This record gives sequence, C-alpha cells and structure tokens, in this order.
Amino acid sequence: MLPIRKTAKQSKRGILERLDAGEIVIGDGGFVFALEKRGYVKAGPWTPEATVEHPEAVRQLHREFLRAGSNVLQTFTFYASEDKLENRGNYVAEKISCHKVNEAACDIAREVANEGDALVAGGVSQTPSYLSCKDKTEVKAAFQKQLEVFMKKNVDFLIAEYFEHVEEAVWAVEVLKESGKPVAATMCIGPEGDMHGVSPGQCAVQLVKAGASIVGVNCHFDPETCLETVRLMKEGLQAAKLKAHLMCQPLAFHTPDCGKQGFIDLPEFPFGLEPRIATRWDIQKYARKAYDIGIRFIGGCCGFEPYHIRAIAEELAPERGFLPEASEKHGNWGDNLSMHTKPWVRARARKEYWENLKPASGRPYCPCMSKPDGWGVTKGAKELMQQKEATTEQQLKELFQKKKF
Amino acid sequence: MLPIRKTAKQSKRGILERLDAGEIVIGDGGFVFALEKRGYVKAGPWTPEATVEHPEAVRQLHREFLRAGSNVLQTFTFYASEDKLENRGNYVAEKISCHKVNEAACDIAREVANEGDALVAGGVSQTPSYLSCKDKTEVKAAFQKQLEVFMKKNVDFLIAEYFEHVEEAVWAVEVLKESGKPVAATMCIGPEGDMHGVSPGQCAVQLVKAGASIVGVNCHFDPETCLETVRLMKEGLQAAKLKAHLMCQPLAFHTPDCGKQGFIDLPEFPFGLEPRIATRWDIQKYARKAYDIGIRFIGGCCGFEPYHIRAIAEELAPERGFLPEASEKHGNWGDNLSMHTKPWVRARARKEYWENLKPASGRPYCPCMSKPDGWGVTKGAKELMQQKEATTEQQLKELFQKKKF
Amino acid sequence: MLPIRKTAKQSKRGILERLDAGEIVIGDGGFVFALEKRGYVKAGPWTPEATVEHPEAVRQLHREFLRAGSNVLQTFTFYASEDKLENRGNYVAEKISCHKVNEAACDIAREVANEGDALVAGGVSQTPSYLSCKDKTEVKAAFQKQLEVFMKKNVDFLIAEYFEHVEEAVWAVEVLKESGKPVAATMCIGPEGDMHGVSPGQCAVQLVKAGASIVGVNCHFDPETCLETVRLMKEGLQAAKLKAHLMCQPLAFHTPDCGKQGFIDLPEFPFGLEPRIATRWDIQKYARKAYDIGIRFIGGCCGFEPYHIRAIAEELAPERGFLPEASEKHGNWGDNLSMHTKPWVRARARKEYWENLKPASGRPYCPCMSKPDGWGVTKGAKELMQQKEATTEQQLKELFQKKKF
Amino acid sequence: MLPIRKTAKQSKRGILERLDAGEIVIGDGGFVFALEKRGYVKAGPWTPEATVEHPEAVRQLHREFLRAGSNVLQTFTFYASEDKLENRGNYVAEKISCHKVNEAACDIAREVANEGDALVAGGVSQTPSYLSCKDKTEVKAAFQKQLEVFMKKNVDFLIAEYFEHVEEAVWAVEVLKESGKPVAATMCIGPEGDMHGVSPGQCAVQLVKAGASIVGVNCHFDPETCLETVRLMKEGLQAAKLKAHLMCQPLAFHTPDCGKQGFIDLPEFPFGLEPRIATRWDIQKYARKAYDIGIRFIGGCCGFEPYHIRAIAEELAPERGFLPEASEKHGNWGDNLSMHTKPWVRARARKEYWENLKPASGRPYCPCMSKPDGWGVTKGAKELMQQKEATTEQQLKELFQKKKF
Repeated sequence: MLPIRKTAKQSKRGILERLDAGEIVIGDGGFVFALEKRGYVKAGPWTPEATVEHPEAVRQLHREFLRAGSNVLQTFTFYASEDKLENRGNYVAEKISCHKVNEAACDIAREVANEGDALVAGGVSQTPSYLSCKDKTEVKAAFQKQLEVFMKKNVDFLIAEYFEHVEEAVWAVEVLKESGKPVAATMCIGPEGDMHGVSPGQCAVQLVKAGASIVGVNCHFDPETCLETVRLMKEGLQAAKLKAHLMCQPLAFHTPDCGKQGFIDLPEFPFGLEPRIATRWDIQKYARKAYDIGIRFIGGCCGFEPYHIRAIAEELAPERGFLPEASEKHGNWGDNLSMHTKPWVRARARKEYWENLKPASGRPYCPCMSKPDGWGVTKGAKELMQQKEATTEQQLKELFQKKKF
Repeated sequence: MLPIRKTAKQSKRGILERLDAGEIVIGDGGFVFALEKRGYVKAGPWTPEATVEHPEAVRQLHREFLRAGSNVLQTFTFYASEDKLENRGNYVAEKISCHKVNEAACDIAREVANEGDALVAGGVSQTPSYLSCKDKTEVKAAFQKQLEVFMKKNVDFLIAEYFEHVEEAVWAVEVLKESGKPVAATMCIGPEGDMHGVSPGQCAVQLVKAGASIVGVNCHFDPETCLETVRLMKEGLQAAKLKAHLMCQPLAFHTPDCGKQGFIDLPEFPFGLEPRIATRWDIQKYARKAYDIGIRFIGGCCGFEPYHIRAIAEELAPERGFLPEASEKHGNWGDNLSMHTKPWVRARARKEYWENLKPASGRPYCPCMSKPDGWGVTKGAKELMQQKEATTEQQLKELFQKKKF
Repeated sequence: MLPIRKTAKQSKRGILERLDAGEIVIGDGGFVFALEKRGYVKAGPWTPEATVEHPEAVRQLHREFLRAGSNVLQTFTFYASEDKLENRGNYVAEKISCHKVNEAACDIAREVANEGDALVAGGVSQTPSYLSCKDKTEVKAAFQKQLEVFMKKNVDFLIAEYFEHVEEAVWAVEVLKESGKPVAATMCIGPEGDMHGVSPGQCAVQLVKAGASIVGVNCHFDPETCLETVRLMKEGLQAAKLKAHLMCQPLAFHTPDCGKQGFIDLPEFPFGLEPRIATRWDIQKYARKAYDIGIRFIGGCCGFEPYHIRAIAEELAPERGFLPEASEKHGNWGDNLSMHTKPWVRARARKEYWENLKPASGRPYCPCMSKPDGWGVTKGAKELMQQKEATTEQQLKELFQKKKF
Repeated sequence: MLPIRKTAKQSKRGILERLDAGEIVIGDGGFVFALEKRGYVKAGPWTPEATVEHPEAVRQLHREFLRAGSNVLQTFTFYASEDKLENRGNYVAEKISCHKVNEAACDIAREVANEGDALVAGGVSQTPSYLSCKDKTEVKAAFQKQLEVFMKKNVDFLIAEYFEHVEEAVWAVEVLKESGKPVAATMCIGPEGDMHGVSPGQCAVQLVKAGASIVGVNCHFDPETCLETVRLMKEGLQAAKLKAHLMCQPLAFHTPDCGKQGFIDLPEFPFGLEPRIATRWDIQKYARKAYDIGIRFIGGCCGFEPYHIRAIAEELAPERGFLPEASEKHGNWGDNLSMHTKPWVRARARKEYWENLKPASGRPYCPCMSKPDGWGVTKGAKELMQQKEATTEQQLKELFQKKKF
C-alpha cells in the first residue's frame, strides 16, 4: 500500500509551479450543494453568507476536502458578487455586506489551507448584471470588487468559474489577470458550447488569449460530458497553437439526458437529484479518464462530497506516490470490507466487484431519464433580469402557468 | 409561515415527559454513513473512534442535526462495545480503549445538546459476542461496560438499538433498565421479524416486558418498510394489552428489493447505494405517515443527512407549532426557488411539483432492483464468529469463491 | 438432438389417460390477444365471432399452436356465452347468434386437431350474468347453452376457465360435469385468492369437490405468480386429502406490480403491454419450474404466441423424448444463430448467453412498474352490471372524472 | 367516424401514379420476425423458404397486412438470393431452389393483392457475395436471377431494400432499373450513414442517380432514428437538386442505444427484443411525424405486426378519407374499451390516456439501455465471408472467446 501523506507538513509551491512540473493537482468539491444539505445554504439564491453566519461549518467542509486530498481550497465566494447578493429578495448585501462575506471566505480557506498542502484560490462567477445586459464596465466592476478582497487577503491564485457566456468569462479573466496572480477559468458548458453558440474550442482559445493559464469546465454536466467538453477545448487550443493547462470540475450527478444548459433544466434540479449521485467508483473512473486526456487539475463541483474527492486521490495515488489522510479510513476498492461482520459483505472486498456493479435505483416507479425543461431564454430575456425585490405572487403565477407540471 | 425556534433557549424536559404529553420527538440521523462520506469512519468495522480522533467532525455533525430539528442527540457509540472494537483486525480497543471512545462520545453530545433543546441518549447495539454464542453473562457485561460511562456522564436516557435478535435486545434492555433511566429499544428488523423468526409484534412485547418504555425499529429497511414493521409492533402490543411509545429510525435509502436481513444483503451495500438515497420529499411523506400511525419518536438512521431530519421537522411543523433553525435556509416545499435566477426553476417553487415528481436515475444501463445476497447464515455460523485478527487472504479467497460476482 | 415429432400421425388418447400416465400435456396460447393483433378481435368486448367471420385466421392460429407443440386445442369460445355476446353495444348474439359462434369454433378446432396429436377442449368462461347478480339457474343456463354445442360437436373434454369467483366456477363445473366428459377448471386468481377472498387452496378444494379432474389457474398474472398460486392450490388439496391434476396457463406478460385483480388493473392494459412481453427464455424457465412443482398440463393465456408454446415444448423435450414440428425452425437455446452472417451474433448461439441476458427496454423515459388501478368494485357493483346498450357518453364522462389520468 | 374501405373493390393504379398524385401509400410489416414467432422462419439464416414449405402461413400474414391497410405487398423474397440460400449450413438452394422460393413468393403475394387495393413489389436485398468481396458482375448476377422471376410473374414494381453499403444498393438499382418497372431503394442505415461512411444524403443522391424513383430506409433502427435518417436523405436530395419520393420502413422496436450498425449489435438481438416492441400509439406518432416530414410511402419492417400497420392507417385516415378493413375491430385511440366489463378499463377509452401513457416494463431487474456489441468488422472481414458449410464447433469456440458474456 502507498503511504498516506499527512496533511500538515508540506512546503507550498504555486499552482503553475506544480502544473508546469507535470504534477496532478486535486481540486475540491461543491460547497453550495454540500452546505445546503447540512443546513447552511439556501437553494435558490445559493449565496455564501455562511462564511459570516456559520464559519465553523464552512471550515469543517474545507477541512474534510483537505483530508480527502484537495490541493486547492477555493474561497467560498460563489455568487458573492454584490449584484447577486441582493437579487430577488435575498438581502445579504444589505444585511452583511459583500465585502465581509468575501473576507470571511478568504480567512477560513487560509486557516484550513495552512493545516496541509493546499493553495487558496479566490473565485468569481457569473453575474446577474451580465444577464441583465449591463455594460462591460459595470460587469467588470463587480469582479474588481471581489478581487480587491482577494488581493488584500493574498490568495495564492484566482479562478473565474461557472460562466455560461464566454464573453463574460473573458471579462472576468481580464480583471483577474491584472492582479498578476495566475488565473484559471472554467465555464459551465457542454460539448454544444456556450449559450451564444461559441464552441468549447473557441471558448478555450478566447480565455487563454485573455490571460488564463488554466482552462476547462465546471458544474452543469456529469463527469463524462465534462471530459468530452474539455477534450474539445484541448483540440481547439491545439488547432490554435496555444498552450494552457486543463482543468475539470464536473457534477457528481449522472446527467445523460441534459440539454445545452445542463442540469438546471432537469426536472429533478435541485431537490430530486439524489438518484443521480455518483458513486465513489464512478469518480475513480472519471479521475483515470481525466488523467488520460491530459487534464492535471482534477476536481469536482456540485454533488462532490469529500469521499468523491478522496476517490480521485486514491485512483491517482500510483501516479502521485501517496494517499490522502482520509484514506486512513478507506481501503483501496473496498478492501476494508474484509473487516465486516457479515461474510457476504466481506466477499465484496475487491475491485472487480465494485468496478462492475450496476447499482439499482430501488425506485421501480421512476424512469431512468427525464426530458429537460427548455425555455430557450438567455442573456437579455425579461425573465432573467436581475430584480432586487422578491419574486411576486403574480410573477410566480405566470411561471406556473407557463410550465404545466 | 410558522416561527423558527432558535436552538439555544429551551428548558429541558425528559424524554418520557415529552412523549407522555403527546409531543413529537425528532431523532437524529445516522453517524457512521455520514462520517464515512466525510472521511472519518471506516466502512467495514463501522466503529466510532472518531470521537477521540476527530471530535470536531463529530461535534459538527451533531450540531447540524440539532439545527435541523433533532430533539435527541445519540452519543456516537454505535458498535462501541469492547468486543466489536477489536474485531477482524480493527484494533481500536487496543489503541484507544473502549472507555475513552464512549466517554468522548458523551462529552461531545452533551456539549452540542446544551446549545439547544435536545436530550442526550446513550446507545448500545448488538455485539459480536452474541453472534459468537457467548453466554448471557458475557454479552450483558459488554453492555454494562458502556452503561458505566453513560451513568458517569449522566446521559438523559438510554437506547438499545440495531438488534437482529430479540433475545440479545432483551438482555440489553435488562442491563440498561437497572440504571433507572428511561430505556428505548429498536431492532433492525422488517415485517418478517427477527433472525430467529420472532414476529415484530412478539419482539415488541418482549422488549416492553423487559422494561423498555419506547420500542420500534431502526436501520436495515426503507421508511415504508420500517413503518409497516412498527405498525405490526403496535398491533402486537395492543393484542397483549401493553403500552409503550413507538419509535422509528429507518434508512434514507429505498429498499423495496430487500430480503429479511435488510440492506446489508443488497449488492450495493455499502458503496453503491447512492441511487437509492431518499429525497427530502420522500422523508416528508415518511414523517407524515409515521405520525398518522401514532409514532411520536421519529428519526432516521444510515443515509439520513441533516436535511432529511429537517424534512421531518418541516412536515410536522404545523403539529409542533414551529420550524427548526435550519429552516432559515429552506423554504416550505421548495418555495425558496422563487429566488432562483432561471425562470423555469422558479416555476418549481411549489408543493405539487415536488410531491409528484418521479425522479429519474440518470442511469439507463442500471436496473431498478437487485437480487439480495442471501447466505442464510446467522448466530452461531462459523463465518459470523468474532475474530480478533484481520481476515486472512485464504478466508477472503473462500468467500470470493462462494460468491460469484 | 431429440427427434422432431411430426404433427400428423398420432393415435389420440384422452386427456386423463395422458395425465394419469404422468405425461406432460402442453396447452395452447391466448386467442383474443393474438387475434386482436392480427386484426380479427375487438379489444373491449373480446368476443370470438371471428370463428364465423374469418375462420381462416382462427384456423391458422390453431395450426401454429399445434406445430409449436400444443396437445390441446381449446375451442375459440372465450366469452361466447349469450349474455356476453350482447353486452354494452356488442351485438354479436343478434347479428350472428351464440350458437353459430360456438359451432364454428368447434369445427375449426377439430379440423386442425385432426392434423396432429391434439385434443379438442370446449371452453366456458365467466359471465356478465354472475356479476349482475343473476341467480344460479340463470348463470348455469348460459353454460348449458354452450355445452349443448360442445356435446353435439363431440369435443374431447371441457374446460371452465377465467373465473374470478369460485362460486361461479363451481356452478360451471357442475354443469359441465353432467356431460360425463372430463372437466378442467382454472381461475384467473393470484395468491390472494378470489374476489370474495377465498384462498387458492380453498378454491381448488371446492372445484375438485364439484367434479373437476384438473384444476389450476389461467390468465391475469405472470408465470411466476401463477405458479405460486397453483402451488397454493396443491397445498390446499393435499391438506384436504384430495387428488387432482394441476394446470397452469399464465400470461406471457411480466406483472410483478399487479394487485389482486391482475393485469386488468395495470394502466398498460390492454394497449401498452408490449414492454412486459415474456421472451422465449422466460417461458422456458416457467416450463421447467411448472414441471418441478408437479404441474403436468402446462400452457399459456393472453400474450402467448406460438413461439412461447414452442419454448415449453423445447424445455420439456428431454422429459417428453421429442421436439415439436416448429422446432425445425428453431435451435435449442439459440443455436441456429451459428448460421447468422454477423460473427458477434453467431457468438450468441449458446444457452448461457440467453439464460443470463437481462433484456433492456429501450425506454429510458418509462418506469419499470406501475401502480395498478384499484377501484375495489366487484360482483354486484352498479358499474359492473351487464348492459345491452353501448356505454353512453354520460357514463363515460363519469368514468373519466372518476379516474384522473 | 370515417368509413371503412373494404379490401376487395379497388381499381389498381401504379405506385408512381399514386405517389405523384400526393397519395399516402402504406407499406407492410416485417415477415421474417413475424413468421419466426409463428414457427415458419429460422432466426439466424432468416431465409423465406416458407413460401414453398408453408404457403398458407405466408398467405395469411399477407392477408392480415392487407386488412390492416397495406397498399403494397412485398414478395416474401428477403434474403432469397442464391448465395444467401446456401450460406453457413442453410441448404435451401439445394433442397428447394432459389427459383422456386421466389416464384412461390410472387404467386402468394399476387393472390392476396387481388383481394384488395394493393400492389405487389418484388424485393431484393443485400448479398453475402458483396460482403465476401465478389466483383460487381457476380453480385449483379444474383439480383438478375431474382429479377427474372419478378418479370415472369409480372410484379407491379421493385424494391431494393436492406443494404448496408450504398455501392451494393446502387448495383441492385441498376439491375432492377433495366426492367423498366419503377424502382424503390431503401438502406438499413442510420444518421451516421453506410458502413463505409457515406452519409444518408449522399446515399440518397447516388440511389436516385442510379435510377431509383423512391428512396429511404428500412430496418435496423427505431422509427424516430429512421425518420431522422430519411430527413437527412431529403436534405441531401434538395442540396443536389434531385427529386424522388421518400419511403420509411423502420423497426417496431425502440433502439435509442444502437450504434452505427443498428439493432443487430444490441445484446437482445434477436431473441430478447420483446421489451422494446413499439405500442400502437408509438406507431401512430411515427406515422404522423413521417407524414409531416413529407414521406408518403410509410410502412414497417421487423417487429411490425398487422396492428402496427393498422395504426399507420388509422393515424392517417383523416388525410386518406377512409379506414382499413381491420379497423372494424379497433376503435380510434382505444374507444372500443367503452365496451369493456370493468369500469376502470372503460375509463381508458380516450386519446389523452394512451397518448400520455409511459408504459412500464414489468422488469425491475433489467436496465433500460444496453451497450451494443461493436466488433467494427464489415465488408471484406474474414468472419463475414460467405461459407456454404455450417459454422464449425471450432469457429464458434473462437467467437465465444472473443465475446465474453
């Protein structure tokens, strides 16, 4: 068995230093989904005010990812731009302030990163302002505001993530790039490309030209689909003779039935996705395939719990030469089951068993796939406009009528 | 909307005081599964040494359940009997000691319980000694050893849970009863009864006669099956003219295909159960049905995450008159989705949508049900004997041959 | 390979002569479903006027079953009682006459039976009169009328089949028994028993006491469920120290989700049952299991096509010593696939392949099970009354309202 | 209700006369699958010697299709080329002769066509010679030999169908075209094109240039996939400014999981396809969609039973002005169910019920999709060579090893 590397004793090297040396960098998992299930995040707005309200819960989740093998701790600043914090009746900006949410996120991530071999990445994501057709200056100002906190708190590098439109992603990269810190950029798109029809290859080219050193995708699709999208990005970069590191942070949900907009459109989003949750073995397969494609920044997004990150670290342990701390509590391909009381469970303590298992849903009255909602609206549509006030009863009624169950 | 009751300000009344008054008491969820996914528990032995090794992780999970609405925090002492702590190569007893694991569990539970309106319940569970045919005295001594800690730490009441054989459960109740504290007893059986063929009704009768004030089931089966089992217990008690409070703590996994031994036999146990995980809506239906059957101690077991416990608290909020603290981050039947950016997701902000959803698995190559393993071995079978040493290669090889994949 | 026995050259021995000698007797398949798909029977009334309107189609189906191995050709007289032929706007009695339909059925069956080693069985089935609470005399008169034709045409033996109430089945047996010919009786019930709650064992006892030499079940449930029901009948007879031959003629549809009333209640009945159709391999397993239970009259009902009957004959060929004529066109467990052009299909020419195949539905948006309708009405309910006139628009409207889709 | 047009009284107009006038022409269904289930065709070789051995069975199936609404009766000459009749141990050419099989097929089709408003189409299909790399002259000679019979028997038009390679299809059209009779040509390809990578659009162009007046696809894929392929053909023809009538004869099996080679590759082929069988409502949707795409020759292939053809005729009855004879036994969208005894079945007598039904498989242990075999071999591969002798044990053994179950 490979040695377990304790989290506490590494000298820190920068993200590009690692990637340039050919190392595998393991990302973390999705905070909004994990903390929603733990009771600290509200599905709907999905904003990260828990950094101020319940820092112990955010800290604990960071720590679990660190133990599971994460080399990057992203600040919990998803959707923490000022305009998003005051959208549709979510009064976080007013009650707490954008500044405080972002600062607290940096402090917590740094505290835990110091417990092990992990870097802190400050992150920005898409804004309501862009969807509401605000101009470039205004959108950039939102990113600038978050960046100021990241610089003050001296994060190790920056990530622009979860962009549906490459135009906005490029704006974000441009802002972040001015800091002088390395910039990674991931879009939440599938093989069909961004919401304006720009292909993954073209998106990658534009992001690298804007200054990103690392490009890829995150969220919205399952591992298989995300890998295909990153593969297309790689092809696009090669065709354009551009170089960049590749990154992948997919959902831990199976989404073979998604349309262009990804899992948001699935009828099960966000409160009925349980049967789609990936097993640890699904994630081991993902990690191997990501590695084979040439991706070296391998992490996860919504649905990824600490044990999914550990699965990446365990699958790639032979390449890395060590196991993460949380593997003290997990055997390779189930081999700790040899300690189970029941003999037929001990008989499952082997790779070929778990590798070939086709797990049953236990739901014989449910289908295997769903037809995604597809309203075909994007940037500029009236219903996508930022709106500080809560959605009114009348607005809801109109939406219900538009969508028959 | 009903008021949210903050966790911190209640005067504590005892478990029987509450149940006798007709109140609903909400239990907590399963620790071993939740903490396995967080990286602190080893699947296979499933022992709770995390209480000593990583108290912050155990504390955080207790706190999440408290916020979600739990009125009972069970000490994380599952499988913490001395004989289990030194079974099949798991050297916890030797490295840490049974005493310390149990003490730390009590301390952590009490610390969090003091943050809100929750009682601490000390828990014992079935022992390898019983399966290995040790005599009554020896089995009772194992429970006695744990009880000593519970008394020293002055827990509020006691639970004997997860028993497959009513004979052993009765022994446990007898030991616990001597303490003078209220005793609850739950078995991990289904409608077919215990492993020796004793019916649920008969089990309930024997447990009450032994001194349990609260009886029911926990673990091994999905909510629907567990409710049916408790209903049969209720019938058995009525027929015997005995009175007791009823309790139910099922899995948060769908298990319509289980045999007599429950989810342990399913090929997906324990690392492929994801597609079976219950949604919050499944749990709301469970809570309502449990209430209608007359069960007043309503909680969960393996698979129950904090948001599942919150679902119980939200479903029964009209009866209780308040919502739990974690409902600050959750709308009734999805109504926070009215704050979502995408209009078609806002259109899902209503009960009829979620109530009727048949969630797809996203796994078209997988079936809906599995054939459980059924080796038909129980107490006394050679392969069930306690064995201090790790399972040998030769033993594993024999098991693999016995079970073709 | 076992020899193929040509259909044309056997000396005929009676049904009891065969069964008493321990021979396997193979029944035929369901006519109403097969001929509905061929365009000769109307789903809804399900009456057999095709015997007069299109004798060539009925003859051809008989011939196919004969070639497939059937030793019994049932006259196509299902639902050919006078009262059923004039129910709810189906004017067969008026246009053709009950007498002619039954006579033609006997003539066609006899003609084909003479082409091989098969007996002709005259059949009666449950009546609207019984459901409409007509008295015993009136119900018996309906059977008597059909029996007169059977006697005139000198069928080889008689079958009372498809009864939901044992009371009516007993009346039918009593009528048929007076003819002096051997009588078989099958009910369309499952393990829960008849619509009045009489258990399968009790039903069997009553039927044998009334004069049936052969008892069992037909229709309404899949092979597995029907076998379980016959097994319960066997137990009932043994307990009562009665002797009778056992018979089973199940659906060729998978119905694990049926309630007490069987496949009629499934939402897919009768025009969406395709995904439930049994493969030939399902039927081979059924035939083997039926044999092992001790059933010697083994046939099928709705959904059974000629190739399903051939599957029975092929599975039991070792016991019988020969194959049916149609096996000239079919290899044992797929071995004719060795003649296929594509090599990967030739690789499927073996038992272990087909025996273990879990056939996919090709329908990822559909579930595996349905909730059956359960209106809980039976004999005597207003809506079950015989009604000579067509269902009115108003009546339909009331039904639609009663049943939301 | 539209009038039923009796089959017996039409004046015959030619295929092009009808199509040029904008009429809908309904094809028939697949003979090899239907007659295999009836016991007259051997799966594996799939050859049509039943025309000589059991003409009554072939005649009856033709008649059923005629009654169901078919305007074209295809001679049952599928795979009736000399080389196919003596492939891999199938000695039809030797025992019966290619000539006699084709002659009998023409006679039977003509006899039934004369009973109604149907044309006789002589059909040829792909040859083992082509796969074995025989030269153009030799392959054409095989078609020529069948054509001689068709001319002698004076069929109404000709169909070259079931070609995987457009090169061979073009050769077939060239041969048939010399007869002076109208020629239709269909390939068994999907949207990915022929086995050599020629796109559907290019295939259509080549076929029309070779002389086909009608082009399209048959077999190998489900209705939806076939319609998409014909749509691509239409686009190809439009781009090339060519005119031709369009034709579609898909499987009546759901095959969303097929690869390029179609249903042959599915693990369920050919003996486990039951759960994939289309309902009549699936076919009504297909007929409507085909019509909307502009296809006017609409029929079926393997899996299509008479009731599926009737579904086409019923769906398009408003456009055609009449119903087929078999609709005497079938109500529009289930309305004959108003005559059913059980009230909850009468409540299903309406379009919205059947249109929205998602039929359950009744197979909870089976998946919804399969991974197709994909050996990637085609024309010229050793294992595809014609071989007069039966596959040897040694050859089979090699295949079994190549394919693990």
